[in-house]
This record gives sequence, C-alpha cells and structure tokens, in this order.
Amino acid sequence: MNENLYIIKVGGNIIDDAARLNTFLSAFVQIKGKKILVHGGGKLATRLAADLNIPQQMVDGRRITDAATLNIVTMVYAGLINKQIVAALNAKQSPAIGLSGADAQCILAHKRVHATIDYGFVGDVDHVHTQMLSSLLDQELSVVMAPITQDASGQLLNTNADTIAQELAKALALHYHTTLIYSFEKQGVLLDVNDENSVIPVITREKFEALKADNAIFAGMIPKLENALAAVQAGVNKVIIGDATDLQALITGKNGTAIC
Amino acid sequence: MNENLYIIKVGGNIIDDAARLNTFLSAFVQIKGKKILVHGGGKLATRLAADLNIPQQMVDGRRITDAATLNIVTMVYAGLINKQIVAALNAKQSPAIGLSGADAQCILAHKRVHATIDYGFVGDVDHVHTQMLSSLLDQELSVVMAPITQDASGQLLNTNADTIAQELAKALALHYHTTLIYSFEKQGVLLDVNDENSVIPVITREKFEALKADNAIFAGMIPKLENALAAVQAGVNKVIIGDATDLQALITGKNGTAIC
Repeated sequence: MNENLYIIKVGGNIIDDAARLNTFLSAFVQIKGKKILVHGGGKLATRLAADLNIPQQMVDGRRITDAATLNIVTMVYAGLINKQIVAALNAKQSPAIGLSGADAQCILAHKRVHATIDYGFVGDVDHVHTQMLSSLLDQELSVVMAPITQDASGQLLNTNADTIAQELAKALALHYHTTLIYSFEKQGVLLDVNDENSVIPVITREKFEALKADNAIFAGMIPKLENALAAVQAGVNKVIIGDATDLQALITGKNGTAIC
Repeated sequence: MNENLYIIKVGGNIIDDAARLNTFLSAFVQIKGKKILVHGGGKLATRLAADLNIPQQMVDGRRITDAATLNIVTMVYAGLINKQIVAALNAKQSPAIGLSGADAQCILAHKRVHATIDYGFVGDVDHVHTQMLSSLLDQELSVVMAPITQDASGQLLNTNADTIAQELAKALALHYHTTLIYSFEKQGVLLDVNDENSVIPVITREKFEALKADNAIFAGMIPKLENALAAVQAGVNKVIIGDATDLQALITGKNGTAIC
C-alpha cells in the first residue's frame, strides 16, 4: 500500500486574513503523512499593482498578465507569500520548502493560446516532473508551491493555483495514495450559498450534472468541481472541498464535500 | 577525493545588466561539478522601494531593513530575481532550483544585535543545515540561493549575500572539495582601482595585512577579503575573486585573485 499524500490548496480569502491563515497552518502541521500546500496570492498582488499604478484587467475571474503584472505575481506569490508560509511552518516545527513550478522545471507549462482573448503571460500545464518533489517529500519536508511556472524557453508564466494542485495530484497519484483538498472559507459545496449548513456531502459526476442542470450550484464553484472530477477520473484517490481551518474534519469525512 | 563544489556569488552590477547576466549564466552552466549560485538584488529593490515611496536608509553600505523593506527584499530577491535566474538556467538545459535560507530552514539566523545601530530585520547566520542542499546537488540540480533567512521564531531576515556564500562554503567544505567564487564586474582585486590590468593574483593573510597598512586596497573590498580569508581559515579549499563573465578563467587560475 502506498503512503498517504495530501495536496492542499488554500484559498485567497484565508491568505488575506492573518488569524485564519495561522489557524490553517496549525491544522496543516497536524496532518500525518506527506504534504504539499498550494497557495495563490489573495488580494496582495492586486494591492501592489494598485500601489504601483499598474492597471489590472480581469476576464472571468482570471488575471490578464502583462509583463509588469507577471513581475508582480512572481514577487508576491513566489517571494513574499511563499516564504512567509515556509517560515511559519518551520517555526511550528514542521519543516517546509518553498518552490514554484519553475524550480527544477517541476511543472512545465506553455503560454495560453486562446482564440479571442490574449491572457498574456498565463501558463497552461503540460507536465509535472515528480522526481525532485518525491525526494523532498521523502526527506519529511512539506512542499509549499507558488503558482508560477515556466515554459521550455525560460519564460515565467502565471498559472491558476487550483489547476496546479490538480496537476500535482494527478502526477503524484502514480506514487502515493493521494488526497486533494481544496480548502477555503466555506464549509464545502453549498446547496444554498447563504446557508453554511447546506453542505452537499458527496458529489459524483452524475450528481454534478444534475445540480448544474438545476442551476443549484454557485457559478464560481463549477470550474473547481470540473477540476475535482477530472482529478478523480485521472486516478486521484479522493478530492475534498471544505473549511481551511478544520482540515482534520475534512480528512475524516466529518465535514466538507467529497468528490468521487 | 571529494567531488568538486563551486559556490559562486554574483554581484549586483551583473544582476542589473541583462546582457552581462546572460553571459554570466552561460559561463555558469559550463562549469563541471556541483554548483550553487548566490545572488543579491542589485538596484531593483531600491527602485521598487522608491516606486512605493518607502524611504531607504543605508549605513556603511548596509540596508536598514524595516518591515516594509523586508517585504520588498523578500519579493525581489526570493521572488523575482531568484525565479528569473532559475528559469534562465533551466532554459540553458542546466536544471536549477531556487531557494532562500528559510527553505527547510537551511540557513538559520538571528536578528542582528548591535550596540548603537538598529539594523531592523537583518540576519546574522547561526548555522547551515547541509542535508537538503546535498540531496539536491546529488540530483545534479544547481541551487540558486536568495539572501533571505529566518530565525527560529519564523521571522524572515534580510541577510548579506557575501556572508551567505561564505557560510554555505564553510559548511559544505566538510562534504565537498569546495571553491568559493566572488564574481563581479572587475577582473579581480586591483592594486589601482582604475587599472583593470593591476590584478593582484594571490592574496594571503600576510599580504592582506600589508596591503591594508599601505591603504593599497579599495575600502569596499576589505570586508569581502576578510570574508574570503575567514572561509579559507575554516576549511574552504580556495576562494577566488574576479570577472563574472569569464568564470572558467577564474577556475583555471588564468584570471582573478586567489585567496589562500
């Protein structure tokens, strides 16, 4: 039987709130097994861009990444937030190493090609190289991954953190019994977005299509669920969506939404 | 006989100049053996601080690091410059991984204590943990190190890159035949700062004291030489100071100043 690996994406609203982030990190260090934490940047990149008078353009919640914006997200995601999380985990006696997808080219991507929208320096993932990541996990180090990748020519690329978590899970599921957790400020996938008690405990492909047909799911959740179902399809053992401050309850199945 | 390890600090004037940096990186990938590249941030951190209206205070060439400035150097050094160098080395088919001293707490430091000057969040190195670094070097990865460390409480600290290079060399000299190279825009330690042909080929402790007594060395070079002599004293096999764009000539002894 393979060892357990937990890949945990933490949402931007948690990153933005120091107290919640600290609670999340304390929950993270309690998890037994090998662990990868995937983070984005919350509102910090947006704020830095505003302070530097670099206009930001969003299309369907995705950041159009021009050269100046790429520098900002590389600084904020791979620099500040990544190293702050690493230092906090180390101080909690849970040794961690911070990386981006560019490091050892562990996540190779290409610049997004789109028929009508120029996303700029946005990456779509081609391949995950697992060897270096496994060697670090085998040294009992947690990996903290910033959502910056590169292409074969050395161009850095801004890459969706949910996608990075999913791609890591798919590639590492060949070597570990892998659970992918999308953690954020909600209790799970809710039937009623205003009622935290309306968590849907289990979503299968069939159930997802039915919910979508009924317009019963919040639109922002649909790509996350598509990602989750694709991960299960590709061999990830379990995907869970739920509260970032109580990871143990997600792992034991007490809380959250399990996708299978 | 131990394997060769080259630890190469690259100066800020090279980092600031895209063409020179590219030449340096091409020279770096040509070196045979295990390699660590240590970088600072050049003028980029100063420029970003100016753009954000964060006043910078320098004392004896050292940056006083308040909380806002710590965020800037963490973003610029550990984020932007580190990942740009990593991506460029990967594209040159020389797989590289970018780290800071906080990662896996590989360089543990403490906040500088000084009788009269409050340097702010500046770190002095206590200890280098070599295990994770060796595991990466043994995977034929070059390590690219940004000069950010942390203390045991999880506080990030801005740390002098020359010192980081020296501390890495001293710790890793126990495991590898270690050459420490301080590379920059000059040909070596010059007798006449305006004459690139006045390179002093070899400096011993005795020679250094004589040059200092004669006021024959540029003041900015003195701490670098003190660092270099301390490294040799502590077991580093060779320290070389010279031109960042012709590393091979430094290694073969054709150019530069050797400290022994």
